[in-house]
Amino acid sequence: MPDYPKVNYKEEGMREGMQIEDSQISVENKIMLLDALSETGLKQIVVGSFVSPKWTPQMERIDEIVTKFNPKPGVNYTALALNSRGVERARAYSPPLTIERDQYPRLGVHMCDVFVRRNTNRTQMQEMERWPQVIAQAQELNIKEAGIGTNASWGSNFLGEFPVDNLMTMLERQHSMWDEVGIEVRSCAMGDPMSHCTPAKVEESVYRVKERWPEINHIRLHLHNGRNMAIASAYAAMRVLGPDDTLDLDGTIGGLGGCPYCGNGRATGMAPTEDLLHMMEDMGVDTGVDMDKLIDCVWMLEGVVGRELYGHVSKAGPRPKKLEELYDIDMPFVETLESAKHFKKGPEAYEGGIYPYQQPITSPYRDRVNAGQPAYDSSSGDWPWKQDWFPAKD
Amino acid sequence: MPDYPKVNYKEEGMREGMQIEDSQISVENKIMLLDALSETGLKQIVVGSFVSPKWTPQMERIDEIVTKFNPKPGVNYTALALNSRGVERARAYSPPLTIERDQYPRLGVHMCDVFVRRNTNRTQMQEMERWPQVIAQAQELNIKEAGIGTNASWGSNFLGEFPVDNLMTMLERQHSMWDEVGIEVRSCAMGDPMSHCTPAKVEESVYRVKERWPEINHIRLHLHNGRNMAIASAYAAMRVLGPDDTLDLDGTIGGLGGCPYCGNGRATGMAPTEDLLHMMEDMGVDTGVDMDKLIDCVWMLEGVVGRELYGHVSKAGPRPKKLEELYDIDMPFVETLESAKHFKKGPEAYEGGIYPYQQPITSPYRDRVNAGQPAYDSSSGDWPWKQDWFPAKD
Repeated sequence: MPDYPKVNYKEEGMREGMQIEDSQISVENKIMLLDALSETGLKQIVVGSFVSPKWTPQMERIDEIVTKFNPKPGVNYTALALNSRGVERARAYSPPLTIERDQYPRLGVHMCDVFVRRNTNRTQMQEMERWPQVIAQAQELNIKEAGIGTNASWGSNFLGEFPVDNLMTMLERQHSMWDEVGIEVRSCAMGDPMSHCTPAKVEESVYRVKERWPEINHIRLHLHNGRNMAIASAYAAMRVLGPDDTLDLDGTIGGLGGCPYCGNGRATGMAPTEDLLHMMEDMGVDTGVDMDKLIDCVWMLEGVVGRELYGHVSKAGPRPKKLEELYDIDMPFVETLESAKHFKKGPEAYEGGIYPYQQPITSPYRDRVNAGQPAYDSSSGDWPWKQDWFPAKD
Repeated sequence: MPDYPKVNYKEEGMREGMQIEDSQISVENKIMLLDALSETGLKQIVVGSFVSPKWTPQMERIDEIVTKFNPKPGVNYTALALNSRGVERARAYSPPLTIERDQYPRLGVHMCDVFVRRNTNRTQMQEMERWPQVIAQAQELNIKEAGIGTNASWGSNFLGEFPVDNLMTMLERQHSMWDEVGIEVRSCAMGDPMSHCTPAKVEESVYRVKERWPEINHIRLHLHNGRNMAIASAYAAMRVLGPDDTLDLDGTIGGLGGCPYCGNGRATGMAPTEDLLHMMEDMGVDTGVDMDKLIDCVWMLEGVVGRELYGHVSKAGPRPKKLEELYDIDMPFVETLESAKHFKKGPEAYEGGIYPYQQPITSPYRDRVNAGQPAYDSSSGDWPWKQDWFPAKD
């Protein structure tokens, strides 16, 4: 197994997700969801955003939510704020909120001037104008380590594709400004609000950042999934990082999400948390998350928004591994999504399904597994060609 | 850019997809879909299967479909048959069907004895019993090159996970049987009917096959997507293959699909063709497919099955790259999936959306792009910090 990086996962469903859903979803339902998410083992949960209720009515009652939900010790709750007014509002609720401070002072910029104008009523120039202030403040505080970063890193719906060369030039510029004042760059963030990530470009970008600046050991990726590339891109990033690196990743339960400013609306959600974390478990990454409880949250969310969402593990269930998770080998046809829910609901979910067999299904392999043995065991020689019935024996 | 393998893509929507949908979908609608798919540039299309109408009523009228559809010259149409009766039925329609013959005589086996019993009323032993016959026939025909392969390669809903070591042992056995008669193995197929693929396991498997037998230059992957891992797994496979290799991949438009025997029903579709091919285009692979026509097919299919499907590119649209594809920078809010369809339907799709700006959005970057220049141009020095307005000039 390759040595993968440490992963910090942040659940964005209550913010990236809810911001594009019906503004009439009740505070009670949002608190129910947030409290259920708190019980899954997720360590970082964004509860919502402190933004203008005029343009984001979905977040109008954020104050009630942060007042009434049940914070779970050990979970880090944050909220998004896009300006000083928002930060001030959020500060009134800390605790339970952690006012999200980047671990490092960071220079950042949108590669797409249009998106930042549409989304935050600022310009790319204004973002860059802040760089000298950020650096001066870091110097005053005698800070030794800093970050660089881009948003809309790989492309934009308004300007098209940005080659990775462009991204590297922008990062290089930021890095050189930290270099000039002798502050070491340890972290690089790359955002993708408009779903232009692809695994090839993310892999190339992370690889080139690490190659150019090996001392950067912290990569932060915020990937949207409008073109179904977020999971593959996350895998690609994990592939090129090592055990001394830390990778921050974000996603939303059910893949919910979207943004009214980017031109894709609800079509630009994020990687479904349940699918992404299930992949990581296969890679040997300890997510600390109870998949069964997480799927409960997805089903709850589907009930709240009134439609099926984009995640897959919540529909087919996790890959069964342990004996108690394996399916009944004699089960009838499972055809619908409702009957597929037997992995949590039990056999009654497929009751009445077509049964096409004349004899019950049996298998010597399942007998082995039922007896606590592996299906195939090279050490004991229990391979088919070691058996009497194998037709082409040595 | 890494050198990726040659990819042969096979569209399985009419077979893997339709076999789990309503059996009452009309022949007319299926022919409409098949004819539309034929116009997209897809080179391999599976039209359906010749199987028992008793257990797969969705394929009962396959004879009518293959009689009435409009075959497009240059497209390879195939049908699945699971036994000699099915092959005989299919043969009556060739042409237009190509009776699918593997390029190589192939030994194959399901890693999961339970699945093959449930799905095809045979046993793993019976699959292996055929191996000597396959080899004898290849010798008689004086064939010099052959294939090996597994199905349910990485795990099963009935037996759990199969470590890659198990897979390699099974392939090793097959390879040694070809070795004994001096026939070279050039191809390896790995199937995954129960969605147990993960990118890490697929990457490891393909890597180990290539490492063990460098002369194998043809890999065939049939990956299901019940746990949302098919696209990442395809990417992982492409990463470890080179330009002298050929990779066969399958998927379905909209990600439609499923199987009544595996225990996941409709929850175990395949990679959405439109999303997978859009990824490949980003990787520089020439798919030959017209994405706009392919999305028409997905929308048509959603109309036929009466619900939204799992693909993403059909909802958000492809990543816009060319000027004529870029979104209007002054467009209003886009919130719903319907309004997101503006990428094909034009501005009327978002007509009446909230317009939050006091002044129209403008950007010097878009002006550049409108004038035919790249957003950033390192050769001309048009980077922000070369401009008068940049706040921290060198």
